[in-house]
Amino acid sequence: MSRIIRIAAAQMGPTQRADHRAHTLERMIRLLDEAAAQGATLVVFPELAFTTFFPRWLLDDNELQPYYEPSMPNPDVQPLFDRARELGVGFSVGYAERTPEGQRYNSSIVVTPDGTILGKYRKVHLPGSVEPRAGAQYQQLEKRYFEYGELGFPVFRAGPVWQDALLGMLICNDRRWPEAWRTLALQGMELLCVGYNSAAYDPNGGESESAELRTFHAQLVAQANAYMNACWAVAVAKAGDEDGSGLIGGTCIVDPNGLIVAGTRTLADEVIVADCDLDLCQQGKSKMFNFAAHRRPEHYRRITGQTGVILPEDESPA
Amino acid sequence: MSRIIRIAAAQMGPTQRADHRAHTLERMIRLLDEAAAQGATLVVFPELAFTTFFPRWLLDDNELQPYYEPSMPNPDVQPLFDRARELGVGFSVGYAERTPEGQRYNSSIVVTPDGTILGKYRKVHLPGSVEPRAGAQYQQLEKRYFEYGELGFPVFRAGPVWQDALLGMLICNDRRWPEAWRTLALQGMELLCVGYNSAAYDPNGGESESAELRTFHAQLVAQANAYMNACWAVAVAKAGDEDGSGLIGGTCIVDPNGLIVAGTRTLADEVIVADCDLDLCQQGKSKMFNFAAHRRPEHYRRITGQTGVILPEDESPA
Repeated sequence: MSRIIRIAAAQMGPTQRADHRAHTLERMIRLLDEAAAQGATLVVFPELAFTTFFPRWLLDDNELQPYYEPSMPNPDVQPLFDRARELGVGFSVGYAERTPEGQRYNSSIVVTPDGTILGKYRKVHLPGSVEPRAGAQYQQLEKRYFEYGELGFPVFRAGPVWQDALLGMLICNDRRWPEAWRTLALQGMELLCVGYNSAAYDPNGGESESAELRTFHAQLVAQANAYMNACWAVAVAKAGDEDGSGLIGGTCIVDPNGLIVAGTRTLADEVIVADCDLDLCQQGKSKMFNFAAHRRPEHYRRITGQTGVILPEDESPA
Repeated sequence: MSRIIRIAAAQMGPTQRADHRAHTLERMIRLLDEAAAQGATLVVFPELAFTTFFPRWLLDDNELQPYYEPSMPNPDVQPLFDRARELGVGFSVGYAERTPEGQRYNSSIVVTPDGTILGKYRKVHLPGSVEPRAGAQYQQLEKRYFEYGELGFPVFRAGPVWQDALLGMLICNDRRWPEAWRTLALQGMELLCVGYNSAAYDPNGGESESAELRTFHAQLVAQANAYMNACWAVAVAKAGDEDGSGLIGGTCIVDPNGLIVAGTRTLADEVIVADCDLDLCQQGKSKMFNFAAHRRPEHYRRITGQTGVILPEDESPA
């Protein structure tokens, strides 16, 4: 048996703060066109795809407002939805969400080729801080600008257009947390879409890991978690230099063996495509990673029972 | 600051069923000597290091008995303990354990340079089956020959001889389960010792993943889990052809960035050594993987709340 979806990863180059929305939309539509021309029916865009990575600045409410989508779709992004439906292509995309009640999330949705929003995810593992770092030119203020996602890690059944794929989403930093992948895999997840904006270096000039090491980390976690959860993973970067702050690339499509079957070569707008056979998940799900046969949750209690580290001696009876 | 331990991984080539214990002990002592000559103070041996991988055969109680250690140490293994103490070298080693009450475990211990047993671990993730596969020449009967470890995933504080390392152990298949690593890391684990006997191919001649892919998987999980848990990992194979059944090599020492800093080149007895600075764990533990700041256990409940997969629709209200 095989259940093949042709999937495109639509890596985006940098989006500057001064760029107009319409320009960014044009770039995304061009990527969509290119993916459709290559036969893809699912196109995965990065985290916060419609804007620059604005949590790098301390902004006031007026400055912040234009970065958030008040609904999805909305007139600003409608051209992407329209073009996708014309092409008969679905997509997943990350965006800053503001609810009618004023709550703000770092979110992503997946949209089927007929334009239906199949599912939404709100980022759980927000990195960075609430308070700005004094004197720093660049910040990482995700914990200030977004609330923690409260939807958990839902898995969506894609329906016949995508081979009844069991599909999950993560956003950026989430992908480094094995708990997130496992929670999805415990719902049968076969395909994971994850967009990211990951720093290539410390933009404030501090001592820093190299861009090469950071790209290795990004791919390592996608590869290993795809293998350990017997799923496909499509990990998609926003890459390059945004207003003086660098982002890694390393966009890749990973099979359930943890092997990269397609990867980008640039830090710019770039489409890669792979035929992803969901039935390749069955080997892992039925043997090595047959959860029902091999997991031992009675020994995992710390994972849900504590948040931070508890050193051995701290538990010793007095 | 730096807290450096020189660690040796003592890969072992195959041990045939007909090999005498004394011969195997001599090989292990030779590896210990070589590691000590290179300045190592901790030597990591593989899983079931004193014997062949006997769960590949259906054996009766009389045949099984000699494979288990009735106590540790015992006269059969005492020469290893004696030599280690002479050399001022500690070690970890995997063995088949039989308790005075007759319970059987796939276990490992870590022994300090003064000969004290610092800690014991009993394998939690037993692969294979209880019942033999009809007609198969080779079995995988770990679930028949061992009980599931009931000690959980303990972390041991090594004391000044090993820089107060927080040390954990896993055995073989355990290393593919991120829950096991995370449970250790939630106790501050800085160093993970894991021995393995992993098949290089299907010994019964079925369609099979290549030895290269299996070695990639073994290293991928060591690298990614070391990175995601900000710890060192020493993953040590018993390798080569045991009575017609092949085992992968791929022994490696991995740093908290997930990089392999030393690896074996053979499928035979081979020592590799690395200087492991435990303080390199601090970067990850205090920033990217600062669990107290970034974990969200309220969303991880499936990890302890269910064993196998529950598909999304199975939970839908009727």
